[in-house]
Amino acid sequence: MPDSRTKIAELLRSTAPGTDVVVKGWVRTKRGNKNVAFIAVNDGSIIHNIQIVADVARFDDSLLKKITTGSCIKVEGRLVESLGSGQPVEVQAERIELYGTADPETYPLQKKGHTLEFLREIAYLRPRTNTFGAVLRIRHAMAYAIHKYFNDRGFFYLHTPLITGSDAEGAGAMFQVTTLDLNNVPKNDAGEVDYAQDFFGKPCNLTVSGQLEGELGALALSQIYTFGPTFRAENSNTPRHLAEFWMIEPEMAFYELEDNMELAEDFLKYLIRYALENCADDLAFLAKMYDGELLERLRFVVENDFVRLDYTEGIEILEKSGEKFEFPVSWGLDLQSEHERYLVERHFKKPVILINYPKEIKAFYMKQNEDGKTVRAMDVLFPKIGEIIGGSQREENLDKLRARVDELGIPQKDIWWYLDTRRWGSAPHSGFGLGFERLLLFVTGMANIRDVIPFPRTPKSAEF
Amino acid sequence: MPDSRTKIAELLRSTAPGTDVVVKGWVRTKRGNKNVAFIAVNDGSIIHNIQIVADVARFDDSLLKKITTGSCIKVEGRLVESLGSGQPVEVQAERIELYGTADPETYPLQKKGHTLEFLREIAYLRPRTNTFGAVLRIRHAMAYAIHKYFNDRGFFYLHTPLITGSDAEGAGAMFQVTTLDLNNVPKNDAGEVDYAQDFFGKPCNLTVSGQLEGELGALALSQIYTFGPTFRAENSNTPRHLAEFWMIEPEMAFYELEDNMELAEDFLKYLIRYALENCADDLAFLAKMYDGELLERLRFVVENDFVRLDYTEGIEILEKSGEKFEFPVSWGLDLQSEHERYLVERHFKKPVILINYPKEIKAFYMKQNEDGKTVRAMDVLFPKIGEIIGGSQREENLDKLRARVDELGIPQKDIWWYLDTRRWGSAPHSGFGLGFERLLLFVTGMANIRDVIPFPRTPKSAEF
Repeated sequence: MPDSRTKIAELLRSTAPGTDVVVKGWVRTKRGNKNVAFIAVNDGSIIHNIQIVADVARFDDSLLKKITTGSCIKVEGRLVESLGSGQPVEVQAERIELYGTADPETYPLQKKGHTLEFLREIAYLRPRTNTFGAVLRIRHAMAYAIHKYFNDRGFFYLHTPLITGSDAEGAGAMFQVTTLDLNNVPKNDAGEVDYAQDFFGKPCNLTVSGQLEGELGALALSQIYTFGPTFRAENSNTPRHLAEFWMIEPEMAFYELEDNMELAEDFLKYLIRYALENCADDLAFLAKMYDGELLERLRFVVENDFVRLDYTEGIEILEKSGEKFEFPVSWGLDLQSEHERYLVERHFKKPVILINYPKEIKAFYMKQNEDGKTVRAMDVLFPKIGEIIGGSQREENLDKLRARVDELGIPQKDIWWYLDTRRWGSAPHSGFGLGFERLLLFVTGMANIRDVIPFPRTPKSAEF
Repeated sequence: MPDSRTKIAELLRSTAPGTDVVVKGWVRTKRGNKNVAFIAVNDGSIIHNIQIVADVARFDDSLLKKITTGSCIKVEGRLVESLGSGQPVEVQAERIELYGTADPETYPLQKKGHTLEFLREIAYLRPRTNTFGAVLRIRHAMAYAIHKYFNDRGFFYLHTPLITGSDAEGAGAMFQVTTLDLNNVPKNDAGEVDYAQDFFGKPCNLTVSGQLEGELGALALSQIYTFGPTFRAENSNTPRHLAEFWMIEPEMAFYELEDNMELAEDFLKYLIRYALENCADDLAFLAKMYDGELLERLRFVVENDFVRLDYTEGIEILEKSGEKFEFPVSWGLDLQSEHERYLVERHFKKPVILINYPKEIKAFYMKQNEDGKTVRAMDVLFPKIGEIIGGSQREENLDKLRARVDELGIPQKDIWWYLDTRRWGSAPHSGFGLGFERLLLFVTGMANIRDVIPFPRTPKSAEF
């Protein structure tokens, strides 16, 4: 890499003490006595700090005084074995350059612990903390693993549009996108908004799902996946909702529901195994600080076959459970987190894939079963968080799809292009959606979804 | 992979004729005589088709009749060496299942060639053509190479927000995001839009750049990159503008301008080398169909050191060139494509990195040079397309940055959080932006940016 420093992640793996090194990073703490200063420096490459040992006599007093928590420094020195720092090596400083100070009177991230609520208010600074360094490194690792998984298996990454003129996606409330002047909205003769003057010449929204366009890709390239931002304008101020989040939606021609289940299970296990193998230090830190059962829960998913079960059987189990649920159980119920977690955590003690849901509680595009009542939907249910993946085989028969669209009152003129894919060269196909932040909640053990995305967007909040 | 077929990409690499195979895909052509039918099938995994040979006597007449261009079939048969198909192997069909027909009377993608303009109108079907199959596979490969490049070098993928309450990014006109009812915009007592009732409680827009937030990440994790959608509400109906496009923005603490240049050159060469090595068939197709000099141009970039040159020297060369430019040359000019291409294609015959631009034509956050006139900007200029990357070292000095912000009349209250990064723990840092579709224009040789993104968004157009 161009710049001359060695990353701390690399230094801490080094087996060559005695070499001259250059370290750059931010000071986490400084302690010491009148002879020697111990400066813990972090550069974000790894959760651990490297200890800089500075012989006080060798450095200008005023320089050392300015090296406080949060300041940024460059250190040239010698990498030596460490006896006391808790790390195998430390750096004996020869030269120190101060890049940027951090006045202890004003800098908010002093050594003391901070609540996650406080850190959320200063989201622009929280990547400098251990917790958010760990979360963001894991977020990166998971994003990379997703691309690697699909690339290695011949899936093509398809960028579906964010701005959409279609409102048939039906997955939730939408944000409108406009260039009209809200102080002076142009009206037509009928007194309605004159969308001919808007940028796209019609009302447009931010997408709630790339699936419909994803299917267009799959029915040409066989296997595609999306990985992009998705939006919901729902006024839900909860630890599980964001107005802007990232979603992964693979879509595969020639996959039936069984293939879809196999892919979903293999995919999730791959991602979690990748985290266990590549993010061990960050996971250990988060487990220690926030969630003692985190590693156990991750291994639980990797090591168990997922149970595959009909919705109808799931309902029977819940009815016979003798549990008192907040939402009473009966066939037709849209399962709540309490039901999902009962099946996973108490009954099967394994992840569960529930299939063949009542058509009334699922989307119009799902493949209809022969029974006339259920569709080939699948939800993957996980411990602690409930549904982590939702998917289905898609209805590939044009007549059946049209009939369902009409039944639900969706105007065919809004999705003529989607219907056309069943008109010409239709094929059995399937897909699913994984909410990226939902995955990260599971992998990091964090409890609030606002803590697994760098800059959360929620009702009344779009800071930084 | 779960489903039982073998991909055509794999079959065509096969050195084991004689094995039983299952092929699934879309019919490109059917020809033959009364004894034998030759069916060319494509599944999107590769640009080439596999030839299916069907002994007419073995199949139902009505089945064979329905197998027309665009229909989707499953073929079970034997992989055999091919004498005539132009491919090493073909499939001797034993069973054929018809998944979906494509009525020749209505299906738009018949065998004859289609203009790119026509295909743009049916963007929902064009991934089924050779051209867009090739473009989308290359698009995937480039996206993957970008993630791999950064992951392998310890950069972290940072998801910067799409919806932003900040309008200080200054890179262009913005789309507004709202949940207010445009037919009935609520007003406050002063008669202005009552944004307290809007979703975020204030006016919000779609981002034009993730850079400012990217810097927050770099000043914590050292090296980050963004790769996400970006928006411009500019009414530009040209072959080079999109309202929604994807951008890559790496940002690196401790990088000075020279490091930034090295990274940009290494990065671009890596991506183009990756395309040459991994997309050879698709590139060969595009070169043959659209741009005979494509491969030569790609190799030209990989094989040449980029020239590094001061803007001021560039201006001198242009002034001395004796060329008659549409935009007359003088110091202070914001270079146009004609000037950039002159330097690259005619004067140096190499890619050029132009640095140290006049501060008046560059953004507020660029590091100011000692001369008081120029900033540490860099633009990477390529043959055929001109500027492919724009970047700079960032101004890390709080006082200088504030002075420039004030000079330009940007309200400090809009970017207090950005300024704060220079207040605490500031460090030299740099970054750049690469428009993904700009890269794809270069790599694919396509001439219109609407042909390198699956679903283009442009003025008055947001279809599918």
